[in-house]
Amino acid sequence: MSLIVIGTMAFDAIETPFGKSNRIVGGAATYIAWSASNFTRPIKQISVVGGDFPMQEMKMLEARGVIMEGVQVKPNERSFFWSGRYHLDMNARDTLETQLNVLSDFEPIVPASYQDCEFLMLGNLSPHIQLSVIKQIEKRPKLVAMDTMNFWMDTAMSDLEKVLAKIDVLIINDSEARQLSGQYSLVKAAKVILKMGPEYLIIKKGEHGALLFDEKQVFFAPALPLEDVFDPTGAGDTFAGGFMGHIAKTKDLSFENMKRGIIVGSAMASFCVEKFGTTRLKEITASDIEERMQRFKDLVSFDVGLV
Amino acid sequence: MSLIVIGTMAFDAIETPFGKSNRIVGGAATYIAWSASNFTRPIKQISVVGGDFPMQEMKMLEARGVIMEGVQVKPNERSFFWSGRYHLDMNARDTLETQLNVLSDFEPIVPASYQDCEFLMLGNLSPHIQLSVIKQIEKRPKLVAMDTMNFWMDTAMSDLEKVLAKIDVLIINDSEARQLSGQYSLVKAAKVILKMGPEYLIIKKGEHGALLFDEKQVFFAPALPLEDVFDPTGAGDTFAGGFMGHIAKTKDLSFENMKRGIIVGSAMASFCVEKFGTTRLKEITASDIEERMQRFKDLVSFDVGLV
Repeated sequence: MSLIVIGTMAFDAIETPFGKSNRIVGGAATYIAWSASNFTRPIKQISVVGGDFPMQEMKMLEARGVIMEGVQVKPNERSFFWSGRYHLDMNARDTLETQLNVLSDFEPIVPASYQDCEFLMLGNLSPHIQLSVIKQIEKRPKLVAMDTMNFWMDTAMSDLEKVLAKIDVLIINDSEARQLSGQYSLVKAAKVILKMGPEYLIIKKGEHGALLFDEKQVFFAPALPLEDVFDPTGAGDTFAGGFMGHIAKTKDLSFENMKRGIIVGSAMASFCVEKFGTTRLKEITASDIEERMQRFKDLVSFDVGLV
Repeated sequence: MSLIVIGTMAFDAIETPFGKSNRIVGGAATYIAWSASNFTRPIKQISVVGGDFPMQEMKMLEARGVIMEGVQVKPNERSFFWSGRYHLDMNARDTLETQLNVLSDFEPIVPASYQDCEFLMLGNLSPHIQLSVIKQIEKRPKLVAMDTMNFWMDTAMSDLEKVLAKIDVLIINDSEARQLSGQYSLVKAAKVILKMGPEYLIIKKGEHGALLFDEKQVFFAPALPLEDVFDPTGAGDTFAGGFMGHIAKTKDLSFENMKRGIIVGSAMASFCVEKFGTTRLKEITASDIEERMQRFKDLVSFDVGLV
């Protein structure tokens, strides 16, 4: 089994009510790989970085079974950079600066050695790039999941529709689901979006948990009530990484197993937000993850039988 | 066993994105009684109405085991009236008009026949009135729960603190918990509020579910994802009624049973919002409630063991 991850590997500078980071390593594919590598290996990364990207960070991921053959390094260019500020309500954020740099003309190349992939996670990037990766993979993976954002709905809806028609699982947040569907009710939004292509829709609601829909069923996963959400950057990508890591590990595409995947993703995201950037993801162990999964179980378990 | 409910019985006029009601019967104690009477009887009501309050509504509640001896009728005065407007995000609302009418000089009187009460639900009213009821009950009930709102935190904090010191369960929404505690994090807010008196805190998050805290544990109950929240008026009171109805029925004050009480409350609230005012609460049967409880169970059940 192998999982291909495509997404940014980049720098972030983050301000939250609890502090301010320097320029630290981030990017969707970075978080996805850190998270998914707890559950499945190898992970085959597709991304692009500039000469400024720290080799040490690449090595740390390689040591976790993340293959970098598909990561283009452009020595004379700079990596993608994003800076943003969060407020007390961490579900919203202000972008302070975006520098596309290497991303501005990125054309992904899927190496021949990636062709055996069974699972594909399309991190948030332009639908044009996501589509290019899908087309380069000769044998359709067992499961294709994607993340996207409102920016692409505003600027590249026609390409986005093409990608949606080719995927199995769409992972977006509540405001994105509302924008994509034109429906305020998330139940109605799900119905509209599932008609666009994906068989499953995961709607992330930040501190309010996540919903999984298919045509007939719905599942609700809570978020762990935390004393502080220190830095939510990457939480959504970490969630997606946990979800896809679990699916790739189990190779079970049933709704029941997707539910477990969402709990895994939620558990991973609950670690991510405890410290700046990927710091916490680099610390945690298998037993930390197991213990947190149990906390999720305890958080929502009740006995309806006695009522 | 008996449950005393204190709160308004009143008129509301409601605008939502889905329609506009006439002046319809509402009030915290009305919703609480409709909801709780599915689980426990008799319910002993304490409230005040004007000569304009429809006798038929009183009769309908009496037929469900709600005793009206403690409801003062002031024939020459008018009932409390509230009108408000909801937007697509039903967690927030604008008050268009409030007429205190009979409520402006309401002094509750606890009838002698109410003195056997085991459970007391203090619906949202001035802390002065809530305190007066507590003081009139000679033998402390097994469990006292209260609802309150930001208005009393702004205008009657000193009285509110006195009530908080005398109750077991506080039921408020997330913004109220933040205001009462001065903490944005709900986990931190719970710690502060539990020091003010109550042993249990329930934080309602509208469409995002509810949290139950005691000093050591936390439980998360989802809200049912609904196609439309038609009218959220009374949902919080209906929740409280379901919770207290379940507790009064089972007489079990353990954390485990409080969890079930919250699911009962959430199920009842999910009916309430389906139609204007108390309409839906008047229609539902025991099997409707049972079926919905099962939907809550299905919504959050997952098997962590296989991960």
